[in-house]
Amino acid sequence: MVVRGDVRQEVGARIRELRKSLDISQEELADLADLHRNYIGSIERGEREAGLNTMARLAGALGLSLADFFAPFRHPVKPRRG
Amino acid sequence: MVVRGDVRQEVGARIRELRKSLDISQEELADLADLHRNYIGSIERGEREAGLNTMARLAGALGLSLADFFAPFRHPVKPRRG
Repeated sequence: MVVRGDVRQEVGARIRELRKSLDISQEELADLADLHRNYIGSIERGEREAGLNTMARLAGALGLSLADFFAPFRHPVKPRRG
Repeated sequence: MVVRGDVRQEVGARIRELRKSLDISQEELADLADLHRNYIGSIERGEREAGLNTMARLAGALGLSLADFFAPFRHPVKPRRG
């Protein structure tokens, strides 16, 4: 079974939800994570796929470890073969 | 405080450890994840930074969700401010 799917939408939604729970703007999050605000926007919309270091910075700016950030991502991803 | 650090080494070591615990080669993992074997090697050595979809495929090929894969990554990443 081929691995399918795209986690960008789910990751973007998680970032947006966490950001709003902190009541900060994309610009403020960008400043905290030392990333460009437009980049945050495109990640939140699921348009871009963040790399791992960007994810670590975003999680950190949101006050979370990577473990905490990905804690809800519990669905199994099917490998290509058994 | 500026966000520092690079998670590539830690991620690469985690993939290698999981792969060896399953007793599969880089080639077998590459086949399961539908990635090139050389790419797996460079990620395991911390030379490359995987994107999130690649991580999801690798985790899936190793039999884990992203939550499981990142569960040990519990250290906080300091945000730039606050």
